Amino acid sequence: MSNIITVSREFGSGGRELGKRLAEALNVPCYDHEIIEMVAKHQGFDPEYVSQVSEKEIQAFYPSTIGNRFSLSHTMPNQSMQVVLAEREVIKHFAAQGDCVIVGRCADVLLREKTPLNLFVYADMASKLERCAQRATAEEHFSAKEMQKKMKKIDKERAAYRALFTEDRWGSKESYHLCINTSGMEIKHLISAIAAYATAWFEEKKADE
Amino acid sequence: MSNIITVSREFGSGGRELGKRLAEALNVPCYDHEIIEMVAKHQGFDPEYVSQVSEKEIQAFYPSTIGNRFSLSHTMPNQSMQVVLAEREVIKHFAAQGDCVIVGRCADVLLREKTPLNLFVYADMASKLERCAQRATAEEHFSAKEMQKKMKKIDKERAAYRALFTEDRWGSKESYHLCINTSGMEIKHLISAIAAYATAWFEEKKADE
Repeated sequence: MSNIITVSREFGSGGRELGKRLAEALNVPCYDHEIIEMVAKHQGFDPEYVSQVSEKEIQAFYPSTIGNRFSLSHTMPNQSMQVVLAEREVIKHFAAQGDCVIVGRCADVLLREKTPLNLFVYADMASKLERCAQRATAEEHFSAKEMQKKMKKIDKERAAYRALFTEDRWGSKESYHLCINTSGMEIKHLISAIAAYATAWFEEKKADE
Repeated sequence: MSNIITVSREFGSGGRELGKRLAEALNVPCYDHEIIEMVAKHQGFDPEYVSQVSEKEIQAFYPSTIGNRFSLSHTMPNQSMQVVLAEREVIKHFAAQGDCVIVGRCADVLLREKTPLNLFVYADMASKLERCAQRATAEEHFSAKEMQKKMKKIDKERAAYRALFTEDRWGSKESYHLCINTSGMEIKHLISAIAAYATAWFEEKKADE
């Protein structure tokens, strides 16, 4: 069975960078934006729209059901549902290609039968604000307060998106195999140790099979 | 500044073994039972009594205050307080000797000014029950249900003990730097990766100083 690593993360924690660098270190592909792009291409949607359905629109259709999943068809309009289901297929398609790292999109839940190594990346608010400020483009001018509000909103949307698929709570350590606090850390310096952990974990898993 | 690693853990997760093996891998001392023994020796108590004060008696004196710390002197009788305060001194004494691993006893909180690397070790219930069954002596005959009850009680006592010192919640990932899920894993196979993580983390910390 393939060695699949999923990366769930708090907004601003550096989880995306961690996933990308980890994939490089392990010499496997990393799927992140690629998921949205492939869904958009196959369904004939604009990638921006797909991205919005996946995270930003969920709460509008699914406001109070975290921890109480309903059937998708009862809670989401057809077009959004189409995107969510297409994402699921694309993730499964990528996972079927072999070893990889997948960032976000509840891949940990969708690929449960492939027993991936599931990482959760988080950080304290000061570190997340600093990271966001560093990567902001010249056009972006958020105050710390605005950025904090944005962060909380996105994390809430991620939790809501996850609640579509599972009762395991987003960000609850029990849902993951390793939870990495990146506060005050340069992601790149942690990568070789995380890659070593992943390698040891997969070896252990294979020994059990 | 010394490189100090603290290990907090759920009962049955293998955290004690992880601490011991990690210390061996890093060639530094591991303090665990040594804390209780030194407190007992210095205070003239029986080690079993010291161990009971630290975990088992706390809740009796401190039943409803998790998250709402009161001053120790208002909530604990003199002798128990004496033990808790002596533990604190012993932990600080060990930490002053140089690099080390300290298991339990809220060392992460007590040594905050030394900015230790704080690990939390946890596992799913099935794995914890299996681990407990493996290490049970011939005299111990707990059913799975009894063992589960015992586990929950001990973890609750640990949370209560922690609440004496801090408002950071025991077991909440935000309180730690790395949370390690040992479900289905042989601890010994994860050690070199965790040692590598610790080394990278301390290097990063030093670069920031």
